[in-house]
Amino acid sequence: MAVELYFFQPLGTNSGRVYLTLLEKGVDFVRHELDGRAFDHFQPDYLAINPKGQVPSLVHDGRAITEGAPTMDYIDDAFEGPPLKPSDPKARWRMRCWAEYIDQDFGPAGMMLNWSNVVRPFMGERSRDEVEALLKRVPTDERRRAWKRAYERVVPEAELAESRRRNEVGAARMEAALATSPWLAGDDYSLADINMFNFFSWMPRFQPDLVNAEKTPHAMAWLDRMEARPAVQQMRAETTGRRTPPQTGAETT
Amino acid sequence: MAVELYFFQPLGTNSGRVYLTLLEKGVDFVRHELDGRAFDHFQPDYLAINPKGQVPSLVHDGRAITEGAPTMDYIDDAFEGPPLKPSDPKARWRMRCWAEYIDQDFGPAGMMLNWSNVVRPFMGERSRDEVEALLKRVPTDERRRAWKRAYERVVPEAELAESRRRNEVGAARMEAALATSPWLAGDDYSLADINMFNFFSWMPRFQPDLVNAEKTPHAMAWLDRMEARPAVQQMRAETTGRRTPPQTGAETT
Repeated sequence: MAVELYFFQPLGTNSGRVYLTLLEKGVDFVRHELDGRAFDHFQPDYLAINPKGQVPSLVHDGRAITEGAPTMDYIDDAFEGPPLKPSDPKARWRMRCWAEYIDQDFGPAGMMLNWSNVVRPFMGERSRDEVEALLKRVPTDERRRAWKRAYERVVPEAELAESRRRNEVGAARMEAALATSPWLAGDDYSLADINMFNFFSWMPRFQPDLVNAEKTPHAMAWLDRMEARPAVQQMRAETTGRRTPPQTGAETT
Repeated sequence: MAVELYFFQPLGTNSGRVYLTLLEKGVDFVRHELDGRAFDHFQPDYLAINPKGQVPSLVHDGRAITEGAPTMDYIDDAFEGPPLKPSDPKARWRMRCWAEYIDQDFGPAGMMLNWSNVVRPFMGERSRDEVEALLKRVPTDERRRAWKRAYERVVPEAELAESRRRNEVGAARMEAALATSPWLAGDDYSLADINMFNFFSWMPRFQPDLVNAEKTPHAMAWLDRMEARPAVQQMRAETTGRRTPPQTGAETT
Protein backbone atom coordinates (compact mmCIF):
# COMPACT_ATOMS: atom_id res chain seq x y z
CA MET A 1 0.00 0.00 0.00
CA ALA A 2 2.92 2.31 -0.70
CA VAL A 3 2.17 5.96 -1.41
CA GLU A 4 4.76 7.96 -3.34
CA LEU A 5 4.77 11.57 -4.48
CA TYR A 6 6.85 13.09 -7.28
CA PHE A 7 7.09 16.84 -6.82
CA PHE A 8 9.10 20.02 -7.38
CA GLN A 9 10.75 22.28 -4.83
CA PRO A 10 10.18 24.90 -3.61
CA LEU A 11 6.78 23.57 -2.49
CA GLY A 12 3.90 25.68 -3.79
CA THR A 13 1.32 25.89 -6.60
CA ASN A 14 0.70 22.49 -8.18
CA SER A 15 3.19 20.45 -6.15
CA GLY A 16 2.35 22.23 -2.90
CA ARG A 17 -1.39 21.72 -3.07
CA VAL A 18 -1.10 17.93 -3.39
CA TYR A 19 1.76 17.71 -0.86
CA LEU A 20 -0.23 19.71 1.70
CA THR A 21 -3.35 17.59 1.13
CA LEU A 22 -1.33 14.49 2.03
CA LEU A 23 0.02 16.19 5.16
CA GLU A 24 -3.44 17.42 6.24
CA LYS A 25 -4.87 13.95 5.68
CA GLY A 26 -2.05 12.38 7.71
CA VAL A 27 -0.88 10.11 4.89
CA ASP A 28 2.62 8.65 5.19
CA PHE A 29 4.32 8.97 1.80
CA VAL A 30 7.68 8.49 0.09
CA ARG A 31 9.10 11.79 -1.18
CA HIS A 32 10.60 11.88 -4.70
CA GLU A 33 11.87 15.37 -5.41
CA LEU A 34 12.39 16.08 -9.12
CA ASP A 35 14.84 18.73 -10.28
CA GLY A 36 13.01 20.99 -12.72
CA ARG A 37 16.24 22.67 -13.81
CA ALA A 38 17.64 19.31 -14.87
CA PHE A 39 14.35 18.58 -16.68
CA ASP A 40 13.90 15.44 -14.56
CA HIS A 41 10.19 15.56 -15.39
CA PHE A 42 10.94 14.88 -19.06
CA GLN A 43 13.18 11.87 -18.39
CA PRO A 44 11.84 8.51 -19.67
CA ASP A 45 11.50 7.13 -16.12
CA TYR A 46 9.14 9.90 -15.16
CA LEU A 47 7.29 9.98 -18.48
CA ALA A 48 6.48 6.30 -17.85
CA ILE A 49 4.60 7.47 -14.73
CA ASN A 50 3.08 10.61 -16.24
CA PRO A 51 3.23 10.74 -20.06
CA LYS A 52 2.43 14.47 -20.02
CA GLY A 53 5.58 15.14 -17.97
CA GLN A 54 3.59 17.21 -15.51
CA VAL A 55 4.30 17.47 -11.81
CA PRO A 56 3.14 16.35 -9.25
CA SER A 57 2.20 12.68 -9.64
CA LEU A 58 0.97 10.46 -6.85
CA VAL A 59 1.60 6.73 -7.07
CA HIS A 60 -0.73 4.61 -4.94
CA ASP A 61 -0.77 0.81 -5.10
CA GLY A 62 1.28 1.02 -8.28
CA ARG A 63 -1.20 3.27 -10.05
CA ALA A 64 -0.33 6.82 -11.10
CA ILE A 65 -2.82 9.48 -10.01
CA THR A 66 -2.27 12.77 -11.85
CA GLU A 67 -3.94 16.18 -12.39
CA GLY A 68 -3.86 18.51 -9.39
CA ALA A 69 -7.45 19.08 -8.26
CA PRO A 70 -8.65 15.51 -9.03
CA THR A 71 -5.64 14.18 -7.10
CA MET A 72 -6.60 16.26 -4.06
CA ASP A 73 -10.12 14.84 -4.23
CA TYR A 74 -8.66 11.34 -4.61
CA ILE A 75 -6.52 11.70 -1.48
CA ASP A 76 -9.57 12.73 0.54
CA ASP A 77 -11.62 9.82 -0.88
CA ALA A 78 -8.98 7.06 -0.66
CA PHE A 79 -7.39 7.54 2.75
CA GLU A 80 -8.46 7.59 6.38
CA GLY A 81 -8.04 10.90 8.17
CA PRO A 82 -9.93 14.14 8.79
CA PRO A 83 -12.50 14.88 6.04
CA LEU A 84 -11.34 17.69 3.76
CA LYS A 85 -14.67 18.20 2.00
CA PRO A 86 -17.62 19.86 3.80
CA SER A 87 -20.67 17.62 4.25
CA ASP A 88 -23.14 20.39 3.37
CA PRO A 89 -23.88 20.28 -0.40
CA LYS A 90 -23.84 24.08 -0.81
CA ALA A 91 -20.49 24.40 0.98
CA ARG A 92 -19.15 21.57 -1.14
CA TRP A 93 -20.37 23.37 -4.26
CA ARG A 94 -18.51 26.52 -3.15
CA MET A 95 -15.38 24.39 -2.65
CA ARG A 96 -15.70 23.08 -6.23
CA CYS A 97 -16.24 26.56 -7.64
CA TRP A 98 -12.94 27.64 -6.05
CA ALA A 99 -11.19 24.66 -7.63
CA GLU A 100 -12.60 25.57 -11.06
CA TYR A 101 -11.66 29.20 -10.61
CA ILE A 102 -8.11 28.28 -9.63
CA ASP A 103 -7.61 25.89 -12.53
CA GLN A 104 -9.21 28.05 -15.19
CA ASP A 105 -8.38 31.57 -14.15
CA PHE A 106 -6.37 32.49 -11.08
CA GLY A 107 -3.82 29.67 -11.22
CA PRO A 108 -2.82 30.04 -14.88
CA ALA A 109 -2.56 33.84 -14.42
CA GLY A 110 -0.14 33.45 -11.51
CA MET A 111 1.80 30.74 -13.31
CA MET A 112 2.17 32.91 -16.40
CA LEU A 113 3.54 35.83 -14.36
CA ASN A 114 5.79 33.47 -12.45
CA TRP A 115 7.02 31.83 -15.65
CA SER A 116 7.85 35.12 -17.21
CA ASN A 117 9.95 35.84 -14.13
CA VAL A 118 11.71 32.51 -13.65
CA VAL A 119 11.91 30.60 -16.93
CA ARG A 120 14.21 32.99 -18.72
CA PRO A 121 16.81 33.36 -15.95
CA PHE A 122 16.57 29.62 -15.41
CA MET A 123 16.91 28.63 -19.06
CA GLY A 124 19.17 31.58 -19.75
CA GLU A 125 22.04 30.02 -17.85
CA ARG A 126 22.25 27.50 -20.68
CA SER A 127 23.44 27.85 -24.24
CA ARG A 128 20.84 27.90 -26.99
CA ASP A 129 22.02 24.43 -28.12
CA GLU A 130 21.50 23.10 -24.64
CA VAL A 131 18.04 24.66 -24.48
CA GLU A 132 17.09 23.18 -27.86
CA ALA A 133 18.27 19.74 -26.69
CA LEU A 134 16.25 20.02 -23.49
CA LEU A 135 13.12 21.16 -25.31
CA LYS A 136 13.29 18.08 -27.53
CA ARG A 137 12.40 16.08 -24.43
CA VAL A 138 9.14 18.00 -23.84
CA PRO A 139 6.47 15.43 -24.70
CA THR A 140 3.89 17.63 -26.40
CA ASP A 141 4.15 20.35 -29.05
CA GLU A 142 1.87 22.55 -27.01
CA ARG A 143 4.08 22.55 -23.94
CA ARG A 144 7.24 22.85 -26.04
CA ARG A 145 5.82 26.02 -27.56
CA ALA A 146 4.99 27.41 -24.10
CA TRP A 147 8.52 26.77 -22.84
CA LYS A 148 10.05 28.29 -25.93
CA ARG A 149 7.83 31.35 -25.76
CA ALA A 150 8.82 31.92 -22.13
CA TYR A 151 12.51 31.37 -22.92
CA GLU A 152 12.43 33.77 -25.83
CA ARG A 153 10.36 36.28 -23.87
CA VAL A 154 7.76 36.54 -26.59
CA VAL A 155 4.78 36.39 -24.26
CA PRO A 156 2.76 39.39 -25.47
CA GLU A 157 2.43 42.29 -23.04
CA ALA A 158 -1.37 42.06 -23.42
CA GLU A 159 -1.30 38.53 -21.99
CA LEU A 160 0.83 39.63 -19.05
CA ALA A 161 -1.52 42.56 -18.41
CA GLU A 162 -4.50 40.20 -18.52
CA SER A 163 -2.77 37.95 -15.95
CA ARG A 164 -2.13 40.89 -13.67
CA ARG A 165 -5.79 41.91 -13.99
CA ARG A 166 -6.85 38.39 -13.03
CA ASN A 167 -4.60 38.49 -9.97
CA GLU A 168 -6.22 41.74 -8.92
CA VAL A 169 -9.72 40.29 -9.34
CA GLY A 170 -8.57 37.25 -7.36
CA ALA A 171 -7.35 39.36 -4.45
CA ALA A 172 -10.71 41.16 -4.28
CA ARG A 173 -12.60 37.89 -4.55
CA MET A 174 -10.60 36.37 -1.69
CA GLU A 175 -11.17 39.40 0.51
CA ALA A 176 -14.93 39.35 -0.15
CA ALA A 177 -15.23 35.62 0.59
CA LEU A 178 -13.13 35.74 3.77
CA ALA A 179 -15.01 38.76 5.10
CA THR A 180 -18.10 36.54 5.44
CA SER A 181 -16.67 33.18 6.55
CA PRO A 182 -13.48 31.88 8.19
CA TRP A 183 -12.70 29.42 5.37
CA LEU A 184 -13.29 29.62 1.65
CA ALA A 185 -16.12 27.09 1.47
CA GLY A 186 -17.80 28.38 4.66
CA ASP A 187 -17.43 27.22 8.27
CA ASP A 188 -15.27 24.20 7.46
CA TYR A 189 -11.63 24.09 6.42
CA SER A 190 -11.53 22.27 3.07
CA LEU A 191 -9.62 21.43 -0.08
CA ALA A 192 -10.53 24.94 -1.30
CA ASP A 193 -8.27 26.48 1.36
CA ILE A 194 -5.42 24.04 0.64
CA ASN A 195 -5.76 24.70 -3.08
CA MET A 196 -5.97 28.49 -2.98
CA PHE A 197 -3.29 28.82 -0.29
CA ASN A 198 -0.64 27.36 -2.57
CA PHE A 199 -1.37 29.88 -5.32
CA PHE A 200 -2.20 32.89 -3.12
CA SER A 201 0.38 32.84 -0.33
CA TRP A 202 3.11 34.39 -2.49
CA MET A 203 1.02 37.49 -3.20
CA PRO A 204 1.80 39.59 -0.08
CA ARG A 205 5.45 39.36 -1.05
CA PHE A 206 5.29 39.57 -4.83
CA GLN A 207 2.20 41.75 -5.25
CA PRO A 208 2.15 43.79 -2.01
CA ASP A 209 0.07 46.50 -3.69
CA LEU A 210 -2.80 44.01 -4.10
CA VAL A 211 -2.61 41.99 -0.89
CA ASN A 212 -1.74 43.79 2.34
CA ALA A 213 -3.04 44.53 5.84
CA GLU A 214 -4.93 47.66 4.80
CA LYS A 215 -6.46 46.51 1.55
CA THR A 216 -7.19 42.84 2.28
CA PRO A 217 -7.25 42.39 6.08
CA HIS A 218 -9.45 39.29 5.99
CA ALA A 219 -7.25 37.58 3.42
CA MET A 220 -4.16 38.42 5.51
CA ALA A 221 -5.81 36.98 8.64
CA TRP A 222 -6.68 33.82 6.68
CA LEU A 223 -3.04 33.52 5.58
CA ASP A 224 -2.00 33.75 9.24
CA ARG A 225 -4.51 31.03 10.20
CA MET A 226 -3.17 28.89 7.38
CA GLU A 227 0.48 29.37 8.35
CA ALA A 228 -0.37 28.39 11.96
CA ARG A 229 -1.72 24.98 10.92
CA PRO A 230 0.61 22.10 11.83
CA ALA A 231 0.44 20.64 8.31
CA VAL A 232 1.43 23.98 6.76
CA GLN A 233 4.27 24.38 9.25
CA GLN A 234 5.46 20.90 8.29
CA MET A 235 5.31 21.81 4.58
CA ARG A 236 7.29 24.97 5.25
CA ALA A 237 9.88 22.95 7.19
CA GLU A 238 10.20 20.52 4.29
CA THR A 239 10.48 23.28 1.70
CA THR A 240 13.86 23.74 0.08
CA GLY A 241 15.06 25.52 -3.03
CA ARG A 242 16.66 28.77 -4.02
CA ARG A 243 13.71 30.97 -3.28
CA THR A 244 12.26 30.74 0.19
CA PRO A 245 8.50 30.31 0.26
CA PRO A 246 6.39 33.41 0.80
CA GLN A 247 5.88 34.27 4.45
CA THR A 248 3.41 36.28 6.42
CA GLY A 249 3.66 37.99 9.80
CA ALA A 250 2.60 34.78 11.54
CA GLU A 251 5.92 33.14 10.84
CA THR A 252 8.80 33.61 13.22
CA THR A 253 11.62 32.41 11.00
CA MET B 1 -38.04 23.29 -1.92
CA ALA B 2 -38.55 24.55 -5.46
CA VAL B 3 -35.93 23.68 -8.06
CA GLU B 4 -35.68 25.87 -11.14
CA LEU B 5 -33.37 25.74 -14.12
CA TYR B 6 -32.54 28.58 -16.52
CA PHE B 7 -31.18 27.17 -19.78
CA PHE B 8 -30.76 27.59 -23.52
CA GLN B 9 -32.27 25.56 -26.33
CA PRO B 10 -31.31 23.48 -28.20
CA LEU B 11 -30.24 21.38 -25.21
CA GLY B 12 -26.55 20.46 -25.35
CA THR B 13 -23.11 21.52 -24.06
CA ASN B 14 -23.41 23.60 -20.87
CA SER B 15 -27.20 23.68 -20.59
CA GLY B 16 -27.62 20.05 -21.62
CA ARG B 17 -25.18 18.60 -19.10
CA VAL B 18 -26.99 20.15 -16.13
CA TYR B 19 -30.45 19.46 -17.58
CA LEU B 20 -29.57 15.80 -18.16
CA THR B 21 -28.11 15.46 -14.64
CA LEU B 22 -31.46 16.61 -13.20
CA LEU B 23 -33.34 14.10 -15.40
CA GLU B 24 -30.97 11.22 -14.50
CA LYS B 25 -31.32 12.07 -10.82
CA GLY B 26 -35.12 12.18 -11.12
CA VAL B 27 -35.41 15.77 -9.86
CA ASP B 28 -38.66 17.60 -10.61
CA PHE B 29 -37.78 21.11 -11.79
CA VAL B 30 -39.36 24.23 -13.25
CA ARG B 31 -38.07 24.96 -16.77
CA HIS B 32 -37.11 28.54 -17.65
CA GLU B 33 -35.94 28.67 -21.24
CA LEU B 34 -33.89 31.77 -22.07
CA ASP B 35 -33.69 33.05 -25.63
CA GLY B 36 -30.02 33.58 -26.46
CA ARG B 37 -30.86 35.48 -29.65
CA ALA B 38 -32.82 38.01 -27.62
CA PHE B 39 -29.88 38.23 -25.17
CA ASP B 40 -32.21 37.19 -22.32
CA HIS B 41 -29.13 36.13 -20.36
CA PHE B 42 -27.93 39.72 -20.18
CA GLN B 43 -31.26 41.12 -18.94
CA PRO B 44 -31.20 42.59 -15.39
CA ASP B 45 -33.58 39.90 -14.09
CA TYR B 46 -31.20 37.15 -15.07
CA LEU B 47 -28.06 39.03 -14.08
CA ALA B 48 -29.57 39.25 -10.58
CA ILE B 49 -29.47 35.42 -10.53
CA ASN B 50 -26.11 35.01 -12.27
CA PRO B 51 -24.03 38.21 -12.43
CA LYS B 52 -21.77 36.66 -15.07
CA GLY B 53 -24.74 36.23 -17.40
CA GLN B 54 -23.79 32.63 -18.03
CA VAL B 55 -26.21 29.80 -18.69
CA PRO B 56 -27.36 27.48 -17.13
CA SER B 57 -28.20 28.47 -13.56
CA LEU B 58 -29.97 26.27 -11.06
CA VAL B 59 -32.02 27.88 -8.31
CA HIS B 60 -32.61 25.68 -5.28
CA ASP B 61 -34.29 26.94 -2.10
CA GLY B 62 -33.81 30.47 -3.39
CA ARG B 63 -30.07 30.11 -3.83
CA ALA B 64 -28.42 30.29 -7.26
CA ILE B 65 -26.07 27.43 -8.10
CA THR B 66 -23.89 28.19 -11.10
CA GLU B 67 -20.83 26.83 -12.99
CA GLY B 68 -21.48 23.66 -15.01
CA ALA B 69 -19.38 20.89 -13.48
CA PRO B 70 -19.80 22.05 -9.85
CA THR B 71 -23.57 22.26 -10.44
CA MET B 72 -23.63 18.66 -11.67
CA ASP B 73 -21.79 17.59 -8.51
CA TYR B 74 -24.21 19.65 -6.43
CA ILE B 75 -27.25 17.93 -7.95
CA ASP B 76 -25.80 14.52 -7.12
CA ASP B 77 -24.97 15.63 -3.55
CA ALA B 78 -28.18 17.51 -2.74
CA PHE B 79 -30.97 15.27 -4.06
CA GLU B 80 -32.24 11.75 -3.54
CA GLY B 81 -31.96 9.44 -6.52
CA PRO B 82 -29.49 7.07 -8.18
CA PRO B 83 -25.86 7.93 -7.33
CA LEU B 84 -24.07 9.50 -10.29
CA LYS B 85 -20.57 9.26 -8.83
CA PRO B 86 -18.78 5.89 -8.57
CA SER B 87 -17.99 4.76 -5.02
CA ASP B 88 -14.50 3.51 -5.94
CA PRO B 89 -11.95 6.32 -5.39
CA LYS B 90 -9.97 5.54 -8.57
CA ALA B 91 -13.11 5.49 -10.72
CA ARG B 92 -14.19 8.75 -9.09
CA TRP B 93 -10.76 10.21 -9.88
CA ARG B 94 -11.17 9.20 -13.55
CA MET B 95 -14.59 10.91 -13.52
CA ARG B 96 -13.00 14.12 -12.21
CA CYS B 97 -10.22 13.98 -14.78
CA TRP B 98 -12.84 13.88 -17.55
CA ALA B 99 -14.56 16.92 -16.02
CA GLU B 100 -11.26 18.82 -15.96
CA TYR B 101 -10.45 17.79 -19.50
CA ILE B 102 -13.86 18.92 -20.74
CA ASP B 103 -13.71 22.29 -19.00
CA GLN B 104 -10.12 23.10 -19.86
CA ASP B 105 -9.62 21.56 -23.26
CA PHE B 106 -12.28 19.67 -25.19
CA GLY B 107 -15.27 21.83 -24.26
CA PRO B 108 -13.75 25.23 -25.10
CA ALA B 109 -12.39 23.82 -28.39
CA GLY B 110 -15.84 22.66 -29.46
CA MET B 111 -17.46 25.87 -28.27
CA MET B 112 -14.97 27.95 -30.25
CA LEU B 113 -15.67 26.02 -33.47
CA ASN B 114 -19.38 26.20 -32.79
CA TRP B 115 -19.23 29.93 -32.08
CA SER B 116 -17.36 30.61 -35.27
CA ASN B 117 -20.20 28.81 -37.08
CA VAL B 118 -23.22 30.24 -35.31
CA VAL B 119 -22.43 33.65 -33.82
CA ARG B 120 -21.90 35.48 -37.09
CA PRO B 121 -25.04 34.25 -38.85
CA PHE B 122 -26.95 34.84 -35.64
CA MET B 123 -25.62 38.33 -34.95
CA GLY B 124 -25.40 39.07 -38.66
CA GLU B 125 -29.17 39.31 -38.97
CA ARG B 126 -28.94 42.51 -36.98
CA SER B 127 -27.61 45.92 -37.88
CA ARG B 128 -24.27 46.99 -36.46
CA ASP B 129 -26.06 49.52 -34.22
CA GLU B 130 -28.27 46.79 -32.87
CA VAL B 131 -25.24 44.57 -32.23
CA GLU B 132 -23.41 47.39 -30.44
CA ALA B 133 -26.48 48.00 -28.26
CA LEU B 134 -26.73 44.30 -27.39
CA LEU B 135 -23.04 44.03 -26.57
CA LYS B 136 -23.37 46.89 -24.08
CA ARG B 137 -25.41 44.49 -21.96
CA VAL B 138 -22.60 41.91 -21.74
CA PRO B 139 -21.51 42.16 -18.10
CA THR B 140 -17.74 41.72 -18.47
CA ASP B 141 -15.17 43.20 -20.83
CA GLU B 142 -13.71 39.77 -21.41
CA ARG B 143 -16.95 38.27 -22.69
CA ARG B 144 -17.80 41.39 -24.67
CA ARG B 145 -14.48 41.02 -26.50
CA ALA B 146 -15.20 37.35 -27.22
CA TRP B 147 -18.62 38.13 -28.68
CA LYS B 148 -17.23 40.95 -30.75
CA ARG B 149 -14.38 38.84 -32.04
CA ALA B 150 -16.80 36.11 -33.12
CA TYR B 151 -19.15 38.66 -34.72
CA GLU B 152 -16.35 40.30 -36.63
CA ARG B 153 -14.85 36.95 -37.57
CA VAL B 154 -11.43 37.93 -36.31
CA VAL B 155 -10.75 34.65 -34.50
CA PRO B 156 -7.27 33.80 -35.84
CA GLU B 157 -7.04 30.74 -38.08
CA ALA B 158 -4.33 29.36 -35.75
CA GLU B 159 -6.84 29.28 -32.89
CA LEU B 160 -9.42 27.50 -35.03
CA ALA B 161 -6.78 24.98 -36.15
CA GLU B 162 -5.80 24.39 -32.52
CA SER B 163 -9.47 23.76 -31.65
CA ARG B 164 -9.79 21.23 -34.49
CA ARG B 165 -6.61 19.51 -33.28
CA ARG B 166 -8.09 19.28 -29.78
CA ASN B 167 -11.27 17.76 -31.14
CA GLU B 168 -9.21 15.14 -32.95
CA VAL B 169 -7.27 14.30 -29.78
CA GLY B 170 -10.60 14.11 -27.94
CA ALA B 171 -12.06 11.62 -30.41
CA ALA B 172 -9.00 9.37 -30.03
CA ARG B 173 -9.10 9.72 -26.26
CA MET B 174 -12.77 8.72 -26.13
CA GLU B 175 -12.18 5.71 -28.35
CA ALA B 176 -9.26 4.52 -26.21
CA ALA B 177 -11.22 4.88 -22.96
CA LEU B 178 -14.37 3.19 -24.26
CA ALA B 179 -12.39 0.29 -25.73
CA THR B 180 -11.52 -0.75 -22.17
CA SER B 181 -14.70 0.01 -20.18
CA PRO B 182 -18.39 0.54 -20.92
CA TRP B 183 -18.53 3.97 -19.29
CA LEU B 184 -15.96 6.74 -19.08
CA ALA B 185 -15.10 6.32 -15.39
CA GLY B 186 -15.13 2.50 -15.57
CA ASP B 187 -17.93 0.03 -14.85
CA ASP B 188 -20.38 2.63 -13.53
CA TYR B 189 -22.35 5.23 -15.45
CA SER B 190 -21.42 8.60 -13.97
CA LEU B 191 -21.35 12.37 -14.31
CA ALA B 192 -18.41 11.89 -16.70
CA ASP B 193 -20.71 10.28 -19.28
CA ILE B 194 -23.41 12.93 -18.83
CA ASN B 195 -20.79 15.67 -19.15
CA MET B 196 -18.93 14.34 -22.18
CA PHE B 197 -22.11 13.26 -23.98
CA ASN B 198 -23.35 16.84 -24.22
CA PHE B 199 -20.13 18.00 -25.88
CA PHE B 200 -19.36 14.89 -27.94
CA SER B 201 -22.70 13.78 -29.36
CA TRP B 202 -22.64 16.37 -32.15
CA MET B 203 -19.36 15.05 -33.54
CA PRO B 204 -20.65 12.19 -35.76
CA ARG B 205 -22.72 14.77 -37.60
CA PHE B 206 -20.40 17.77 -37.65
CA GLN B 207 -17.02 16.02 -37.71
CA PRO B 208 -17.83 12.70 -39.39
CA ASP B 209 -14.21 12.29 -40.47
CA LEU B 210 -13.17 12.05 -36.79
CA VAL B 211 -16.04 10.08 -35.26
CA ASN B 212 -17.59 7.27 -37.28
CA ALA B 213 -18.29 3.53 -37.21
CA GLU B 214 -14.95 2.54 -38.73
CA LYS B 215 -12.64 4.90 -36.88
CA THR B 216 -14.27 5.05 -33.45
CA PRO B 217 -16.57 2.01 -33.09
CA HIS B 218 -16.46 2.00 -29.29
CA ALA B 219 -17.34 5.68 -29.06
CA MET B 220 -20.23 5.12 -31.51
CA ALA B 221 -21.51 2.19 -29.43
CA TRP B 222 -21.32 4.36 -26.31
CA LEU B 223 -23.34 7.08 -28.07
CA ASP B 224 -25.97 4.45 -28.89
CA ARG B 225 -26.06 3.30 -25.24
CA MET B 226 -26.42 6.92 -24.16
CA GLU B 227 -29.23 7.66 -26.63
CA ALA B 228 -31.11 4.57 -25.38
CA ARG B 229 -31.22 5.84 -21.79
CA PRO B 230 -34.68 7.06 -20.70
CA ALA B 231 -33.28 10.33 -19.37
CA VAL B 232 -31.53 11.07 -22.66
CA GLN B 233 -34.68 10.21 -24.61
CA GLN B 234 -36.59 12.62 -22.39
CA MET B 235 -33.99 15.35 -23.02
CA ARG B 236 -34.25 14.75 -26.76
CA ALA B 237 -38.04 14.96 -26.55
CA GLU B 238 -37.78 18.26 -24.67
CA THR B 239 -35.24 19.71 -27.09
CA THR B 240 -36.42 22.50 -29.36
CA GLY B 241 -34.68 25.12 -31.47
CA ARG B 242 -33.70 25.71 -35.04
CA ARG B 243 -31.04 23.06 -35.23
CA THR B 244 -32.09 19.56 -34.24
CA PRO B 245 -29.74 17.91 -31.78
CA PRO B 246 -27.15 15.52 -33.19
CA GLN B 247 -28.46 12.02 -33.61
CA THR B 248 -26.91 8.59 -33.92
CA GLY B 249 -28.19 5.41 -35.53
CA ALA B 250 -29.94 4.44 -32.29
CA GLU B 251 -32.58 7.07 -32.75
CA THR B 252 -35.70 6.28 -34.69
CA THR B 253 -37.01 9.80 -35.15
